[in-house]
Amino acid sequence: MSAVLGERICAFLAREKVARLATAGADGAPHAVPVCYAVGDVGGAARTWIAVDEKPKRGDPRRLRRLRNIAENPRVMLLADRYDDSDWSRLGWVALRGRAQILSGGGAEHAAALAALRARYAPYRAMKLEAFPVISIRIESANSWGCLE
Amino acid sequence: MSAVLGERICAFLAREKVARLATAGADGAPHAVPVCYAVGDVGGAARTWIAVDEKPKRGDPRRLRRLRNIAENPRVMLLADRYDDSDWSRLGWVALRGRAQILSGGGAEHAAALAALRARYAPYRAMKLEAFPVISIRIESANSWGCLE
Repeated sequence: MSAVLGERICAFLAREKVARLATAGADGAPHAVPVCYAVGDVGGAARTWIAVDEKPKRGDPRRLRRLRNIAENPRVMLLADRYDDSDWSRLGWVALRGRAQILSGGGAEHAAALAALRARYAPYRAMKLEAFPVISIRIESANSWGCLE
Repeated sequence: MSAVLGERICAFLAREKVARLATAGADGAPHAVPVCYAVGDVGGAARTWIAVDEKPKRGDPRRLRRLRNIAENPRVMLLADRYDDSDWSRLGWVALRGRAQILSGGGAEHAAALAALRARYAPYRAMKLEAFPVISIRIESANSWGCLE
């Protein structure tokens, strides 16, 4: 459990399997994409890791909008939420704010991120992700709303 | 059905009940929040409407981050996605880009928006939303990925 996140937020993030990564480019246009994620830490500091498991239509994965935006502006938000159309008292969300960096393959944190992601998502165990970048978010703050149980 | 959206995207947006609204303030910090939404049109132009059904901790609903960001920077993205942990071939999402404006109560579009939202969400039928603002997004483009069926 990470100190910056707290027990309830960590438990919610462990249960949920999809979140949305919001970024903004230098032009100020916001962008959001659904992502798989894992929470970990590097030297006691909370990190969230997101694999890049796809290529854009042409060429280098670094052309993906989320990666271009992070290169231009590292501020990001990650949002995990739960919706229940039959009972709005059960709605809840967790939002993490932080700064993202792109990890190339080969380093220790990249390897730790892939291990954490493969522990959560079976399809990642069969994918060759080592050569793809990983997004690492240094979590600066977390907030939540509603029912997290 | 809206011409800019197309049949498959309209059907996906009609089936899904929650989306995420991404905005960015003048400071470039991206923000995302889960939202209920309805798709409609004004004079043949596609709109997405989002009710404001809550107050910030202190005072005026216009202090909500999403509304402050829209006042500073009207560019927004709305993302609706479907996740299935047991079958990644079923993943899909729809993203709408556009420009948002804040509608105060009293106008014809505000009334049309509340009617469309109440048709989709039973809890809104019991809420007094007339005095709250509505976010109206003029949809400029739509894209999608994966399985929308």
